[in-house]
Amino acid sequence: MKLFLYTVVLNFGIYFQSVCAQSMAEDFKPSSLNQPEKMFPQVNSQRRVRASISAPNANKVQLDLGGVKYDMKKDSNGVWTGESNPQDEGFHYYQLNIDGASVPDPGSLYFYGAGRWGSGIEIPSADQDFFALKNVPHGLVSENIYFSKLTNSFRRCFVYTPDGYNENIKARYPVLYLQHGSFEDETGWSSQGKVNLILDNLIASKKAIPMIIVMDNGYAYKSENNEIKERSKQRESIFEDVLIQEVVPMIDAKFRTIAKRESRAIAGLSMGANQTMRIMMNHLDTFSYYGGFSGTANYPNSDVIDVATFLDGKYKDGNTLNKQIKLFWLGLGTKEPAPFPKSIGAFRNMLEQQGIKYVYYESPETAHEWLTWRRCLNQFASQLFK
Amino acid sequence: MKLFLYTVVLNFGIYFQSVCAQSMAEDFKPSSLNQPEKMFPQVNSQRRVRASISAPNANKVQLDLGGVKYDMKKDSNGVWTGESNPQDEGFHYYQLNIDGASVPDPGSLYFYGAGRWGSGIEIPSADQDFFALKNVPHGLVSENIYFSKLTNSFRRCFVYTPDGYNENIKARYPVLYLQHGSFEDETGWSSQGKVNLILDNLIASKKAIPMIIVMDNGYAYKSENNEIKERSKQRESIFEDVLIQEVVPMIDAKFRTIAKRESRAIAGLSMGANQTMRIMMNHLDTFSYYGGFSGTANYPNSDVIDVATFLDGKYKDGNTLNKQIKLFWLGLGTKEPAPFPKSIGAFRNMLEQQGIKYVYYESPETAHEWLTWRRCLNQFASQLFK
Repeated sequence: MKLFLYTVVLNFGIYFQSVCAQSMAEDFKPSSLNQPEKMFPQVNSQRRVRASISAPNANKVQLDLGGVKYDMKKDSNGVWTGESNPQDEGFHYYQLNIDGASVPDPGSLYFYGAGRWGSGIEIPSADQDFFALKNVPHGLVSENIYFSKLTNSFRRCFVYTPDGYNENIKARYPVLYLQHGSFEDETGWSSQGKVNLILDNLIASKKAIPMIIVMDNGYAYKSENNEIKERSKQRESIFEDVLIQEVVPMIDAKFRTIAKRESRAIAGLSMGANQTMRIMMNHLDTFSYYGGFSGTANYPNSDVIDVATFLDGKYKDGNTLNKQIKLFWLGLGTKEPAPFPKSIGAFRNMLEQQGIKYVYYESPETAHEWLTWRRCLNQFASQLFK
Repeated sequence: MKLFLYTVVLNFGIYFQSVCAQSMAEDFKPSSLNQPEKMFPQVNSQRRVRASISAPNANKVQLDLGGVKYDMKKDSNGVWTGESNPQDEGFHYYQLNIDGASVPDPGSLYFYGAGRWGSGIEIPSADQDFFALKNVPHGLVSENIYFSKLTNSFRRCFVYTPDGYNENIKARYPVLYLQHGSFEDETGWSSQGKVNLILDNLIASKKAIPMIIVMDNGYAYKSENNEIKERSKQRESIFEDVLIQEVVPMIDAKFRTIAKRESRAIAGLSMGANQTMRIMMNHLDTFSYYGGFSGTANYPNSDVIDVATFLDGKYKDGNTLNKQIKLFWLGLGTKEPAPFPKSIGAFRNMLEQQGIKYVYYESPETAHEWLTWRRCLNQFASQLFK
């Protein structure tokens, strides 16, 4: 019996080792999001991530990626190295854990998401050409600081202006207001979201018309001191007021916009999809295009929607909405976790019951992450203002 | 003897404890450069930095700041905390060291300098009002991506346009080309350099006239693949060619500049001062104002300069230079290390021997760091294009 068990364990050990050895393709390359001259982290053809850090006196070092902590191994020089399981294509936040301290990887560039500035990695995707940096005319992304009377604080939005905006000083442009998700900020779309490269490529290939894109911070509260935004306290958001009363007029004054509803779109991802859907329905005089990426205003509910009460009955009259709304666009990744598929499904059922026209897109093999939203933007932006 | 020694040790212990207790002012406040909602790092009125991080299984954690590694202490919850000696006013790069791993502090925002993206801390300075975020009209800082034929690579510059640039579409503006130092990049001036806030404040108080500021990357090499800039290999820089042949024409085409030498200035810090001084002297047909912050083209040499050979004799004819150059401006921090004071001193001696007019400024109590350069910019920009 003892011998039998030993044999089983030995065989299993050999089998397991063999699978692992075969399964680790040694074609790792530095991530496209590494800091200059940094060789790690790396990604291989199996979409595994290899991290490496010198920590000669550490007891335990882990790669913390996608909700899993992978133990890394120390070599004789005190350098710890380890690999993850295969990841989905696209962008992922991650960190290293050194003896219990969760820290950014000193090899990667840093991104704001998951409520912190920290490491990000890009797993090459088959369709990455649409957000690649190419030799096409490039628009500008401008940091725009403003004082908000409503929040009594300085706020910031980033503004994409397409190539030619500065030179064609008589041209006026339609505007897309584009929002980030929860625990992200106004930097997300122009950094990990690749908004400028996506639009540069779409415009260069004439798949989208030149437009301005405004990306503000979706966290806004009435407060005498809101330099530190205490999101955990669930204060009442006044983002809708800030956007409508302060940001839209500022953008129309500062940039050469076409300042009418037919030339304004609003969209967002996750929390931003929820927020902008409410803003859209409350301000059909301001916007005529809507994009909801991985989110709807019934979140997190998946129950049948009662159109009489949902958003104050804003979806009751489908015929009128079909005349007012030029595009109602929804997107979702095929691998998104609960409650998104069912919640968005319930919302779509409501739209269909009300006879409200909409476009629905599914991003293949992506979850609630940035490749889903880059693809959504790519699809959505190509249908705007036409 | 034993008793005597014991008494001495005991007394010294009490004395030392007492000094330490007195010397640590418990008025620490979160740094202005912390990530949202992060309480550490902190700074007290003595300009000490207190860092804190949870690392329950670590053996040793240190705060690595200003070339000194300060041991931190672990509490019963596994949180390590420690303080630095008093620091100079202004901005400093730093990191944490966890069991031999040098990593960014997860509490701070991140900045590119010292050849890496990493932590920075701001020690409040008595004169910080000049770079404070105030309720004045704000200009925009735009990210401008371009393809350089000379380097065969994508490059990026940031462009500050003053308030009113977008609205006053007939106005044209003078341009300052402003360069970072070694192991920094094109993000430095608009992030830790506070270029936009300094100019916003100067322009709002009518101490400077509205101008465009262009901040490019000072590392440029002829290469078929220079995505990773191998600075260590000392390849020949072609930054001068990139700036003159590619950047200046691009800026004049894309922005509403006054495209003549009387309306162009060039300046830089440290390596950037050295680079831009050479570019200025080689292109007096392009620029008429020069600013050198903590650097001159004889770096690192402190010997008497031979005007016949230095920069190909460009300083030989002081009278002509005095007519051509509208402002030749040099700045230095009073605490700068060797070789800067003597090297810049030797350069000033040469200017004086040649009878070349120049302005010299010293930043009080600052070293080779960003508060020196913010002050230099504040002084220099107020004297431009008048």
